[in-house]
Amino acid sequence: MNKLTTVEKLDKKQIEDFFSEALNIEKTWPNLKKVGENKTICLFFWEPSTRTKLSFEHAAKALGFNVLDFSPSLSSVQKGESLEDTLNTLISLKIDGLVMRHPENKISEQIAKLLPKEVLFINAGDGNHAHPTQGLLDAFTISKLKNISDSKVAIIGDVKHSRVIPSLFSGLKKMDCTQIEFFGPKELIPSNFTPQKNDITENCLEGFDFLYVLRIQNERFLEDENLDLQNYIKNYQVNDKFLEFTKFDGKIMHPGPVNLDYEITKSVSNSNNSIILDQVENGLYLRAGILSLLID
Amino acid sequence: MNKLTTVEKLDKKQIEDFFSEALNIEKTWPNLKKVGENKTICLFFWEPSTRTKLSFEHAAKALGFNVLDFSPSLSSVQKGESLEDTLNTLISLKIDGLVMRHPENKISEQIAKLLPKEVLFINAGDGNHAHPTQGLLDAFTISKLKNISDSKVAIIGDVKHSRVIPSLFSGLKKMDCTQIEFFGPKELIPSNFTPQKNDITENCLEGFDFLYVLRIQNERFLEDENLDLQNYIKNYQVNDKFLEFTKFDGKIMHPGPVNLDYEITKSVSNSNNSIILDQVENGLYLRAGILSLLID
Amino acid sequence: MNKLTTVEKLDKKQIEDFFSEALNIEKTWPNLKKVGENKTICLFFWEPSTRTKLSFEHAAKALGFNVLDFSPSLSSVQKGESLEDTLNTLISLKIDGLVMRHPENKISEQIAKLLPKEVLFINAGDGNHAHPTQGLLDAFTISKLKNISDSKVAIIGDVKHSRVIPSLFSGLKKMDCTQIEFFGPKELIPSNFTPQKNDITENCLEGFDFLYVLRIQNERFLEDENLDLQNYIKNYQVNDKFLEFTKFDGKIMHPGPVNLDYEITKSVSNSNNSIILDQVENGLYLRAGILSLLID
Repeated sequence: MNKLTTVEKLDKKQIEDFFSEALNIEKTWPNLKKVGENKTICLFFWEPSTRTKLSFEHAAKALGFNVLDFSPSLSSVQKGESLEDTLNTLISLKIDGLVMRHPENKISEQIAKLLPKEVLFINAGDGNHAHPTQGLLDAFTISKLKNISDSKVAIIGDVKHSRVIPSLFSGLKKMDCTQIEFFGPKELIPSNFTPQKNDITENCLEGFDFLYVLRIQNERFLEDENLDLQNYIKNYQVNDKFLEFTKFDGKIMHPGPVNLDYEITKSVSNSNNSIILDQVENGLYLRAGILSLLID
Repeated sequence: MNKLTTVEKLDKKQIEDFFSEALNIEKTWPNLKKVGENKTICLFFWEPSTRTKLSFEHAAKALGFNVLDFSPSLSSVQKGESLEDTLNTLISLKIDGLVMRHPENKISEQIAKLLPKEVLFINAGDGNHAHPTQGLLDAFTISKLKNISDSKVAIIGDVKHSRVIPSLFSGLKKMDCTQIEFFGPKELIPSNFTPQKNDITENCLEGFDFLYVLRIQNERFLEDENLDLQNYIKNYQVNDKFLEFTKFDGKIMHPGPVNLDYEITKSVSNSNNSIILDQVENGLYLRAGILSLLID
Repeated sequence: MNKLTTVEKLDKKQIEDFFSEALNIEKTWPNLKKVGENKTICLFFWEPSTRTKLSFEHAAKALGFNVLDFSPSLSSVQKGESLEDTLNTLISLKIDGLVMRHPENKISEQIAKLLPKEVLFINAGDGNHAHPTQGLLDAFTISKLKNISDSKVAIIGDVKHSRVIPSLFSGLKKMDCTQIEFFGPKELIPSNFTPQKNDITENCLEGFDFLYVLRIQNERFLEDENLDLQNYIKNYQVNDKFLEFTKFDGKIMHPGPVNLDYEITKSVSNSNNSIILDQVENGLYLRAGILSLLID
């Protein structure tokens, strides 16, 4: 197995191996075993994503990989070349691995099939289908604080358009987490995500260990007439009053980048209970861990 | 000799040395001799060219070079700095080599003169004047399959605007290839390229070993009222019917990126006789070989 | 001390240490001690600056650093993330050093405070407040030719909008330079820069060792109705006639990129007395020297 398209395809053992390798990486950082020596990873980002790309780039370079950055502009697409042709070109350029971000749902499955056996592949987000390394780094972050199987996790916000949630949800499930609840307006939470609470009631987050706050994208609110940003902020913004009202005193998580004063306030995102920056750091170790295991 | 501006300036021995070094590189890939250690190559691309740049970048990094990417925007030109000033700045920044793509015809000759003796230079395409590494990688690809001097090569399409053709043509000639023919509308083949056939007749490609298909750029057809894209496609597109009609059963080549359903169909470009991806791979080895020989 | 925000905060000893390390670097270039091994520098440029970035990138790579290029687009700013959040993300990504260019005056002071103790920081220009490595490389260039304390330095042009001048001025002062004079229209030289001469008189530059020519930006002239570009050129452009009239026969300096036929002519910038390219080369050594000393 050297292709990571979705968390769904992993089993518990593989996830545990990733976590344990990530812990090794963290312990030896930055003097890592140079498993990437004389090997080349190509970052292939069809959508801008500074943080994810930087995290992969740093992880890969710290492992000794050569890194090529191939972020195609629309122009090359307009030139009439198909994605398959582009991929075949990269393969012929003898890259050892491909980390790809693409706006199209599930395209990572097609890519993984097109690539030869020996080429490593990591999906760095495709459409709102999957973002496995983000979901896994979140689960890894949780696991460092509490057994995932004992953790009670609340997820709040725009579940519908999130590429992280399918990956995070699946990762937590595989690690035997049984207590996951969704919060937010029903327009933003597909009905298959249960249990879901569309009203924020007093004490409704009491006893939860983690509150995972999702990014609110203004564009979604402009597109959908059933959505009203001011209304969202009033009812679901995670601020100090919200925490008091819901009696939440666990850890605050967010996949980043934070959209201040939309889904969360600075006071909360910078509070002692926020582990948002731990997620970023753990993401570096986890991505290095995954690269390290998949390149073998 | 550490400046490669055109194939015309090379002799047969130099081309053979490049090919033989490319074969060495291929054999030892990716564990190459780090001839680029503590040396720096600057990629200086004034025109976007993802594939060529990526190929050079990978070749250089695999040889242990530091790679700086300097792709000036028009803004820096508008700031009033001349190309000469920019070059002098790069030289003062102690680069060891420069790989340049530029839209202006023959500018590589000027550059080579401006650079000091010790700085390596490779023309990665200037105007439609020359693209020596592409021409050489194509000749190298042919040489791996058949003695160039025994090969019968057909070139079809937009010879006029191609920066590859002067380099390929010259490379094949220097390697004693005597059987090269041009096919396509006379508007696209300057009269000095002979023999040329403007009509595609039955069996006209019988016995040819290689069919080199050139890229058709829509822009050219919009610019020139004597050209009609539909007409071109009808008469010169390399598709299955075309191959049958012309009785061509040799290898299909293309400098890339392929403009599907213009000059070639997917069925042909992906067929068993297509060696388009071999060209890409050979390009990597050849560029590494050239860098390796020129840096000495 | 591993944060360089302004020259003002340095003492003479520190500047001398930078210069002496730069001389070491120059002597051993390109086989430098790999003090950056397993360490990562992030280039964080919020304004385009090809030369400065390239110089830092080359210096860092030659020292063995991994280099990450993070040049945020406005889009990421528009996404609602604050500079502090972005910085915290970079810190969590375990970078060892940050080299930043930013359009905002004095922002480097805030950044230096936000960064943890162990993270190296170099201000690569903030607003028109400071550009310490440029000021220092200029002073270093002077010091290689003459004792700074004995040098007579004329500065001509747009002092008002220059981010270099505060740094250069301070650097020269700290190195005990007592003879610095400013030349140019009073609209472009704030009154605290003294002595200043707004009229160019016969022989006025006789005996000066260095003439530091500042860049003229057309935008400034469009913004300010008291300024007239033709007038500037007529009175202050450094051309052969100007040199003859003012009897200047010292060395010509310019921070680059040169705006030909505005503040200086090609004939002067390319003359034997021009040390503009030495500045570029010395900048490479000085930046490597500073990185080397600050990373310890």
